[in-house]
Amino acid sequence: MTGGPDQDDPVAGFNAYRRRMNERILAEPNQVVRRFFALDTQTYRPGALDLKTKELLGLVASLVLRCDDCISYHVAQCHEAGVTREEMFEAFSVGLVVGGSIVIPHMRRAVDFLDRLGGTVQPPGPVPEPPEAHEHG
Amino acid sequence: MTGGPDQDDPVAGFNAYRRRMNERILAEPNQVVRRFFALDTQTYRPGALDLKTKELLGLVASLVLRCDDCISYHVAQCHEAGVTREEMFEAFSVGLVVGGSIVIPHMRRAVDFLDRLGGTVQPPGPVPEPPEAHEHG
Amino acid sequence: MTGGPDQDDPVAGFNAYRRRMNERILAEPNQVVRRFFALDTQTYRPGALDLKTKELLGLVASLVLRCDDCISYHVAQCHEAGVTREEMFEAFSVGLVVGGSIVIPHMRRAVDFLDRLGGTVQPPGPVPEPPEAHEHG
Amino acid sequence: MTGGPDQDDPVAGFNAYRRRMNERILAEPNQVVRRFFALDTQTYRPGALDLKTKELLGLVASLVLRCDDCISYHVAQCHEAGVTREEMFEAFSVGLVVGGSIVIPHMRRAVDFLDRLGGTVQPPGPVPEPPEAHEHG
Amino acid sequence: MTGGPDQDDPVAGFNAYRRRMNERILAEPNQVVRRFFALDTQTYRPGALDLKTKELLGLVASLVLRCDDCISYHVAQCHEAGVTREEMFEAFSVGLVVGGSIVIPHMRRAVDFLDRLGGTVQPPGPVPEPPEAHEHG
Amino acid sequence: MTGGPDQDDPVAGFNAYRRRMNERILAEPNQVVRRFFALDTQTYRPGALDLKTKELLGLVASLVLRCDDCISYHVAQCHEAGVTREEMFEAFSVGLVVGGSIVIPHMRRAVDFLDRLGGTVQPPGPVPEPPEAHEHG
Repeated sequence: MTGGPDQDDPVAGFNAYRRRMNERILAEPNQVVRRFFALDTQTYRPGALDLKTKELLGLVASLVLRCDDCISYHVAQCHEAGVTREEMFEAFSVGLVVGGSIVIPHMRRAVDFLDRLGGTVQPPGPVPEPPEAHEHG
Repeated sequence: MTGGPDQDDPVAGFNAYRRRMNERILAEPNQVVRRFFALDTQTYRPGALDLKTKELLGLVASLVLRCDDCISYHVAQCHEAGVTREEMFEAFSVGLVVGGSIVIPHMRRAVDFLDRLGGTVQPPGPVPEPPEAHEHG
Repeated sequence: MTGGPDQDDPVAGFNAYRRRMNERILAEPNQVVRRFFALDTQTYRPGALDLKTKELLGLVASLVLRCDDCISYHVAQCHEAGVTREEMFEAFSVGLVVGGSIVIPHMRRAVDFLDRLGGTVQPPGPVPEPPEAHEHG
Repeated sequence: MTGGPDQDDPVAGFNAYRRRMNERILAEPNQVVRRFFALDTQTYRPGALDLKTKELLGLVASLVLRCDDCISYHVAQCHEAGVTREEMFEAFSVGLVVGGSIVIPHMRRAVDFLDRLGGTVQPPGPVPEPPEAHEHG
Repeated sequence: MTGGPDQDDPVAGFNAYRRRMNERILAEPNQVVRRFFALDTQTYRPGALDLKTKELLGLVASLVLRCDDCISYHVAQCHEAGVTREEMFEAFSVGLVVGGSIVIPHMRRAVDFLDRLGGTVQPPGPVPEPPEAHEHG
Repeated sequence: MTGGPDQDDPVAGFNAYRRRMNERILAEPNQVVRRFFALDTQTYRPGALDLKTKELLGLVASLVLRCDDCISYHVAQCHEAGVTREEMFEAFSVGLVVGGSIVIPHMRRAVDFLDRLGGTVQPPGPVPEPPEAHEHG
């Protein structure tokens, strides 16, 4: 009953589960639910704001509301829209400061998901500023 | 540490875990906790509102607060109280519109759980209205 | 004890109250609180993402978390950063769809605040698409 | 900037503010926002579940999400749909137990609003069970 | 319909409104609601944890859930239980870091309420560390 | 993508995942994120309030915000700081009453985690007060 049942490839497992259950839901003759799904899709289409900005807005909204599946979805969409890792972390930082330390476990999973998407993994290199030892989160 | 450790029968696993941990909690001599559990049970007894309505209220409250275990519990209770799949989806639609797209991943798991309860699986048949292609949620 | 005690000029009243209480808080020798306030300021400085995008992220985060004072603050910041009314409404629409109808009362107050900021009030003109009569929200 | 600026008749003030700001919002050419408002209206139309049940669902969802304006709106809608005071309090009790003591201040304002709607004020009469003295909430 | 209608003495207004509406609620023959109120009172009685610790727990819970009336109530209770201003701010700092910047407007009102309670107003004196200029919150 | 992938020793798995992902996050040159992590650590250092009280505050805040990983972390920290099982349950009871029945599934997992930490498992012994049969939660 979790979002990503495939332990070997969590990204593929997450996508497959989402697709399968969305189909189950949309097969149901409930017009309000269907219209909501259509409206949700329409929301992120480029308009006065471009796709990238809208996906970043969806990402931060998901982060502060602490919904792992929504975060994973928008991380993938942002990645596809060309958001860089540095930009992604700036968006994470807004979500972290607005939403507080309660966001940290979701951010850990977001970074894990981002790393698995591949291509964005940036060699950490020399760490510019030694962070204080910390244990929390 | 998840609510349903039994991968083969998530419904049975969910129920067993809930029962076992409730027993652990109620074995503890903390009167406030025990009274809260008793009060929680009393809340859903038929009164001016019947059982079915009260369970639907519990379901929608759980949906907008996005608690998967609470949603599963109330889906099972509603199912047992005779709530039809169509009524269940109307309750879902209220939770979805009030709570927003952030509710969608929980609704996916709720429909998954409902399908596993058996008996309510309704053949999708010819889909009455072709929904827009969508990818989101 | 509300954020905007000045009935004649809510924007000025809101700003004065915020400034006065922030001073009270920062006069207190609590280093964690002070550092948090400094970090909050740093969060919105332009970096990989520009100021406008960051303020929009703060606005949508505030909207889905339904904090009127935070929304008012970011509406003012967005306005100052040159966000147009059309862009503002697209950000509102993301917050509305992610957060649900529970966001509507906050959006009403956000639009009210935006109107009072002046300069952005756009003549409604001929309404392009007649919305269904509705009563809700 | 509060929902009900008219101190003499809070119900009328609340309704006037809501109507005026909804008009402002719908005058804006943002299709996602308009469609969301239309969908919100559609959600509460009688279907497999009747109007009264749907309004009770909206009320409890609003209560646990702690949105005063949404609660007031659904209290008024429930009242109009013929929900009795006793049924209303049973719905409140579900919201209170699911959402916790944090719901109490909103319940106080909900009862206040309900009392002002008139007609439902029920003489308390002899109190059937003397509650423990309490100070909290 | 706000918690503190008395503009001249918000603390007294807050207390009067709370007391009056609690009486209205408890006059209603709903046993679940009454038992919840009694349980709420019982929760803060000294036990393995003393009164002061329990009230601080109630304060931080209210702060991160962002309920102004609950915060005001627990600030008053903590104050009466002998919590010093310095301890109160340390509790605020935990709520702020866990809950994020979204807590700031509630913290402003909490400090305002605390100042009005009197007796705890501590002369700021020489500020030990000059905080960065900041505008946010 | 869950917090505790090691099924045989969930506590060790939880700690390893947390440590590994925190390292990934802190390797990133984002100063706001790093400062937030440092501030989070500083928050729980003994000051006017002692370590035990601060960890209890963090526990209850995590409980009412319903973050399993945060709850597990603070349960472990409280346990290490010498919080007894009886005190832990009193803190749970505050979180339960403030946050409502929606907290119950998180409390089940918290008790499960606490039991696995070892050492605090207290023989239930003769149950002092027979709780009502209940099924809910």
